Amino acid sequence: MDSQGIEVIPIGRVESPLTDHRAAPRQGVEGAPEACLVLDAAVADGLDGLAAGDEIVVVTWLDRADRRMLRVHPRDDLTIPERGVFTTRSADRPNPVGLHTVEVVDVDGLRVRVRPLEAVDGTPIVDLKPVLGPDPATP
Amino acid sequence: MDSQGIEVIPIGRVESPLTDHRAAPRQGVEGAPEACLVLDAAVADGLDGLAAGDEIVVVTWLDRADRRMLRVHPRDDLTIPERGVFTTRSADRPNPVGLHTVEVVDVDGLRVRVRPLEAVDGTPIVDLKPVLGPDPATP
Repeated sequence: MDSQGIEVIPIGRVESPLTDHRAAPRQGVEGAPEACLVLDAAVADGLDGLAAGDEIVVVTWLDRADRRMLRVHPRDDLTIPERGVFTTRSADRPNPVGLHTVEVVDVDGLRVRVRPLEAVDGTPIVDLKPVLGPDPATP
Repeated sequence: MDSQGIEVIPIGRVESPLTDHRAAPRQGVEGAPEACLVLDAAVADGLDGLAAGDEIVVVTWLDRADRRMLRVHPRDDLTIPERGVFTTRSADRPNPVGLHTVEVVDVDGLRVRVRPLEAVDGTPIVDLKPVLGPDPATP
């Protein structure tokens, strides 16, 4: 693969009642709980304007994933033929980036409560972005 | 910020007629062109099953971004008050991950033609994922 690595510095961690990544829901809409995004003080200014009710994409790094996987049975269902990881949402993939669309429930300083979030406790947070509406001029 | 860094290994690069990131469209739907995702041979198996017509999210690393930025004027419009980068889609942010929803036009070996894509020529590709439909059991 490309020889030039890129360093991601986590901006915070997920605080969640989910601890077993194999038992966690596969997607937020599949019964995932509320969770708290605990942001680092160094990025506090980046949260300015974030408010309850906002719909955001939480970008995580799924650090329990197997980065060597290139083919999987979707949803670990052996009756579904194996296919390339880039056509699935499997966490196991070369760069295990997680994308989670959630609603902001509450913002309290560096603690952002969101729902639903299927990422397990301790998952590193890479970025937060607003969901884009039909009008691309959304900030 | 968090002391534990994470290494992203690019899985390929964008090949695009866009070369000036300041002049590039801000979002794909704002007039961005077709572009080619040139994947590394090491991840070829991960593409198995990808086909023309698929709607995917291309995850990139916007390597021209300013990672020190925490507050910005949305869309560089000085008449819009500054706000935290996590409430905007600005490329300038601590971890400049780009999310691009595109349609696959053609798959030819390691070359995946997509549209529209606003990322500039040479942008590192981090991941490809299918867009999730209303049914979360999508692979």
